[in-house]
Amino acid sequence: MQVESPPTRTIWRSPDSAAVEIIDQTRLPAALETCRLTSLEDAAVAIRTMQVRGAPLIGVTAAYGVALGLAEHADDDALAAVIATLAGTRPTGRDLFTVLAKMRDALAGLPPAERPQAAWSLADELAEECVRTCRAIGQHGAALIERIAKDKKGGPVNVLTHCNAGWLACIEWGTALAPVYVAAERGCDVHVWVGETRPRNQGAALTCWELGSGGIPHTLTVDSATGYLMSEARVDLAITGADRVLRDGTVCNKIGTYMKALAARDNGVPFYVAVPETTVDRTTSPGPGAIPIEERDAGEVLRASGRNAAGAHDSIAVAPLATAAFNPAFDVTPPHLVHGLVTEAGVGPATPEGIEALFGPAPEGRPA
Amino acid sequence: MQVESPPTRTIWRSPDSAAVEIIDQTRLPAALETCRLTSLEDAAVAIRTMQVRGAPLIGVTAAYGVALGLAEHADDDALAAVIATLAGTRPTGRDLFTVLAKMRDALAGLPPAERPQAAWSLADELAEECVRTCRAIGQHGAALIERIAKDKKGGPVNVLTHCNAGWLACIEWGTALAPVYVAAERGCDVHVWVGETRPRNQGAALTCWELGSGGIPHTLTVDSATGYLMSEARVDLAITGADRVLRDGTVCNKIGTYMKALAARDNGVPFYVAVPETTVDRTTSPGPGAIPIEERDAGEVLRASGRNAAGAHDSIAVAPLATAAFNPAFDVTPPHLVHGLVTEAGVGPATPEGIEALFGPAPEGRPA
Repeated sequence: MQVESPPTRTIWRSPDSAAVEIIDQTRLPAALETCRLTSLEDAAVAIRTMQVRGAPLIGVTAAYGVALGLAEHADDDALAAVIATLAGTRPTGRDLFTVLAKMRDALAGLPPAERPQAAWSLADELAEECVRTCRAIGQHGAALIERIAKDKKGGPVNVLTHCNAGWLACIEWGTALAPVYVAAERGCDVHVWVGETRPRNQGAALTCWELGSGGIPHTLTVDSATGYLMSEARVDLAITGADRVLRDGTVCNKIGTYMKALAARDNGVPFYVAVPETTVDRTTSPGPGAIPIEERDAGEVLRASGRNAAGAHDSIAVAPLATAAFNPAFDVTPPHLVHGLVTEAGVGPATPEGIEALFGPAPEGRPA
Repeated sequence: MQVESPPTRTIWRSPDSAAVEIIDQTRLPAALETCRLTSLEDAAVAIRTMQVRGAPLIGVTAAYGVALGLAEHADDDALAAVIATLAGTRPTGRDLFTVLAKMRDALAGLPPAERPQAAWSLADELAEECVRTCRAIGQHGAALIERIAKDKKGGPVNVLTHCNAGWLACIEWGTALAPVYVAAERGCDVHVWVGETRPRNQGAALTCWELGSGGIPHTLTVDSATGYLMSEARVDLAITGADRVLRDGTVCNKIGTYMKALAARDNGVPFYVAVPETTVDRTTSPGPGAIPIEERDAGEVLRASGRNAAGAHDSIAVAPLATAAFNPAFDVTPPHLVHGLVTEAGVGPATPEGIEALFGPAPEGRPA
């Protein structure tokens, strides 16, 4: 359905509490439409087709997906099957697995009859926790922006971001954009450079829509222009989100993040990554091939999507028919290119010690 | 006009010798159409609107533009006005200015009555020279590819390129792609990674069309994925063209080249720039702001062009209406990121000494 007054969240319980509703992010910015998820399959499809996307929002959607999936059967086999279905939707983002582990740990010890209600409650709690976490990330990150504002002789603080790590990627606030929103709320003059983020254009379609709706000044560029912007000293600070951060500070994020981090380093621009603890993977050993990088359909590269002349959502072919295309959705940025992590626990270096200082020792029973 | 059998050049004299014909590159890959340039204004529009593009082809088109422009008046004022009009079409590429200087130097000493015919002859010569030059670049560059093929245990040599620096950017052969064509002609197994080159998608639209027509295996990626490809050791060699090379080896090329050069350096991938001498600017002093970087219309960033469902050339809006966009067409890659220059005179380092070794001392009367 097309909605008139914008929702203030990306996902919410339906009034009858039997379903969840989401903003269908595949329709933005052409149309703001919501859709209703009434089953495990609906939730899995919403994640897989990127109606919801962004590591934290995928996590919360999966939590509601568990609740939806246990409606008819909630015994141990059903619980395991529901979790396996959701775990198979997308491989790279960490929050999905963090949330599914939390759901399993909390539900497995309950009698099956109590599981559906407990799953709904836990999903609600995880959604609220995501909001609080993002707000805290915003407060810690805003201090970085305000410090730059103080040092500048005037004019806005120019923040470069990539993809969409705003409230559309979470429930409210966002990760990378939360510092921008909080700084703006506190009266700081902020301007955001938005990289369009081919092939799915989350920067152009989602971040520009989000910043425009929020009244934050911003300018779109192609991804290739962000290095030039930095070489021209037109960026004060770069902040991206992440889909997964390893315990040594390795950052896995939307394809193109690595090249922006290289350009930031080459031009002395501080490059921060904003993540909640749910995105940090303390168990996977860092190293080549450690993180499964999702490869998406070649059609995303061969086409571009947007609004046609009639204002309808449409796509066009940008290459000759039958061209082969390679479409990795994420890349890996080594920790030495990351100036710091902005988290709900504060800002710290992207190192094993930095991560332990922020979040404490790695959970017991798992390799540190 | 839509043509049936593809032309083998990008620009040629019409049979009646009163006009030139070009492939209209704004229509590719949706349609292979040619159009006829009958006046100075036609030539200037073709350059400005990128019906012809690529530094060498812009140069040759400008040479024919001078011939067209002198048809009615060819006195000193007319010559100066024609050259000024063409010089004002696009600011960054060097060949335009190299060629206009050659035309002026050759024509100014002739009686006005002889100038039109001399201009046509000189333009023809410059076109032929461009073909010979590109073929020589191809031969020198092919040796680099063949050396890698010899060192590899098998499988194709993977060449990464950016934008289009193939025959569509020249008359025949191309600059960056000439080595690929020559190596393939000699039986070398070559595969090309093509960066799509937003916002105008010359990689997706032109290079994929060109390589497909030539039977060269290739795979398209978004620009942001090229760093990941290099980090995964899937690129053996990067070769781009250039719009201008300064006498210290500074490379100005299509936006995004700099970020690819950074990623190449970070991953030990040799990064070569293929240029004819006509692209080398021995007069401009290197330094910040030395090269005028063309800023093009924001609409190119806000939209993407290609083929719609009906197969017709069309465009779609990728961002919300009224989004501000910044659209620099070129960026600057410092010489220390460039492994070498591939020229008609051989392969050499991107240094003042390297350039002097290839092309001799800078022309007299100009600062060395």
